[in-house]
Amino acid sequence: MSIIRQDPTTKEWVIIAAERKRRPHEYHRHPRAHPQPAETGPCPFCPGHEAKTPDEVFRVPDSSGVGWAVRVTSNKYPALGATGVLERREAGPLFREMDGVGTHEVIIETPSHERSLPLMTDREVADVLLAYQSRYRSLREDPRLKYIIIFKNHGEAAGTSLAHPHSQLVATPVPPMLLRRKYEVAVAHYDDTGRCLYCDIAEEERRAKSRVVLETDRFLVFHPFASRVSFETWITPKRHQPSFGQVSEEDLRELAPVLRRTLRALYDQLGDPDFNYIIHSAPAEDENKDYYLWHIQILPRLTTIAGFELGSGIYVSTMRPEDSAAVIREYEQVTAGKGFG
Amino acid sequence: MSIIRQDPTTKEWVIIAAERKRRPHEYHRHPRAHPQPAETGPCPFCPGHEAKTPDEVFRVPDSSGVGWAVRVTSNKYPALGATGVLERREAGPLFREMDGVGTHEVIIETPSHERSLPLMTDREVADVLLAYQSRYRSLREDPRLKYIIIFKNHGEAAGTSLAHPHSQLVATPVPPMLLRRKYEVAVAHYDDTGRCLYCDIAEEERRAKSRVVLETDRFLVFHPFASRVSFETWITPKRHQPSFGQVSEEDLRELAPVLRRTLRALYDQLGDPDFNYIIHSAPAEDENKDYYLWHIQILPRLTTIAGFELGSGIYVSTMRPEDSAAVIREYEQVTAGKGFG
Repeated sequence: MSIIRQDPTTKEWVIIAAERKRRPHEYHRHPRAHPQPAETGPCPFCPGHEAKTPDEVFRVPDSSGVGWAVRVTSNKYPALGATGVLERREAGPLFREMDGVGTHEVIIETPSHERSLPLMTDREVADVLLAYQSRYRSLREDPRLKYIIIFKNHGEAAGTSLAHPHSQLVATPVPPMLLRRKYEVAVAHYDDTGRCLYCDIAEEERRAKSRVVLETDRFLVFHPFASRVSFETWITPKRHQPSFGQVSEEDLRELAPVLRRTLRALYDQLGDPDFNYIIHSAPAEDENKDYYLWHIQILPRLTTIAGFELGSGIYVSTMRPEDSAAVIREYEQVTAGKGFG
Repeated sequence: MSIIRQDPTTKEWVIIAAERKRRPHEYHRHPRAHPQPAETGPCPFCPGHEAKTPDEVFRVPDSSGVGWAVRVTSNKYPALGATGVLERREAGPLFREMDGVGTHEVIIETPSHERSLPLMTDREVADVLLAYQSRYRSLREDPRLKYIIIFKNHGEAAGTSLAHPHSQLVATPVPPMLLRRKYEVAVAHYDDTGRCLYCDIAEEERRAKSRVVLETDRFLVFHPFASRVSFETWITPKRHQPSFGQVSEEDLRELAPVLRRTLRALYDQLGDPDFNYIIHSAPAEDENKDYYLWHIQILPRLTTIAGFELGSGIYVSTMRPEDSAAVIREYEQVTAGKGFG
């Protein structure tokens, strides 16, 4: 029998229809079901082609100091741009629109065309995280930008159009309604309990143990109780910290191996799955409030979002997070003695 | 410059980043980018294999009275099933779950393996709609079922696992939060104006004309102001009617050619695109309220839902609905004299 669970952060339901427990190899894909996007001409993100990307806004230099380890540029086809006016316009009594003012950047994670995050060194992953945060801190100073979201699309089923490892940052002049909704739920929890909902969830997951896959001094990694997709994974800090902009450099350097190990376990157990990850963070104006906890949400794209999900908002997953977490924990144990970690 | 528009039914934003107007042929795919799912063995939905599907719950007989024109069965791998208890269980202080009680059915739209809706006759489409409604009316009598959603996934990018034309019906024991949210917005509009938000939207679209693609005595077809994806299309009745269960047989027979023409225009202009459609309806308990209007939402799946959409809830589309509607209107004019209609 399937089960229905309520996501405590949105109050939306998910259906977990695990008629049969799948074994990990049934998720493992050889060869990749979704090949990397086809290459047409030289890659604009590879070294030597820097002129093909718009203006560079940030770089982490390489060890020689001549080249770059990480490079951030404006997106060539931006969803939002720097110009335009912020005022909403009425387009009839019911319709509102405004200019697409905002920021859309690309974080080129490595000079190597092939070296995706699960295959990097901890140091290389740390450089990517430092680049994310540098841009985050810089853009949160712009009062026009109400929300900054950093995300990664890996593989065609996750929406990548370029194979070279990269992430993206979008800053919007409006707060998403989805965020408003999560805040409503989190504020109600705070009013009832005096505590941060997300800290309570992480603590509850840590106590329950069954969905936890990794724990370090500062971070907890788990498959959430109401996972929307199989192998959904959250990385949360263990102490209350609303904004990704507030993370110390020391913490970011501890986060790097946690993120890399988490992605590597998915890479090895599922056969380099397509995935998205999202860095969720409180908006700049709420950095000192008690309601929200920044966190990383990883969503493997093993199935297709279909009509039921789009129409109802209810996701159907085929594996209990307790079972997927066991698959990842098993991997961690197998590899612990062999240099994984 | 891109524009940001607010969806008046959810208050969520969408970004329309139409850097350049695409011409219709740039959306047209030859051959299909997403082939139909690979066949492994005989199709369980084809005539002669009826024993391969679970119990039949409804059928429209064919003209001979021996075979069937439309057939509805339980889903072999149901997301929700008939057994279980309805009570929520607390799984820790923050986590709630319940048994997956509900209904999951498959509507086999035709005995023909190849004859998809845009290629059917109006009579055949009417039979499909009558089958939808018969099941809808039957299931809304079950007080355990809080929401009934009928939807279709066409093509792999839309989540189909079987090529034979079929739709699905899922009835859930919980109302989706997404529906709650839409009701909140609709009730606020009703409190302000005394009118149904969806009727007002349809009337406003009819007045604005620029996004309308088809109008008949009883139905309006338009690309909504804040389309989440390119060529998103809504079909709404022209008079207030909350539930799909309330539509008269006469109206369903007028709806059939409207749905078929709408799908056929997309089929011809975009090259048999993958798409989802969803029949949205007020829940049984709200059939006599003034807040909601049943409608059909068609979502072509020309691009992939990626990290930004999943993380923010904000969709990025690449074509203004005014431009996509013009593409469809142009088609309607071209084909009007040639037997289309």
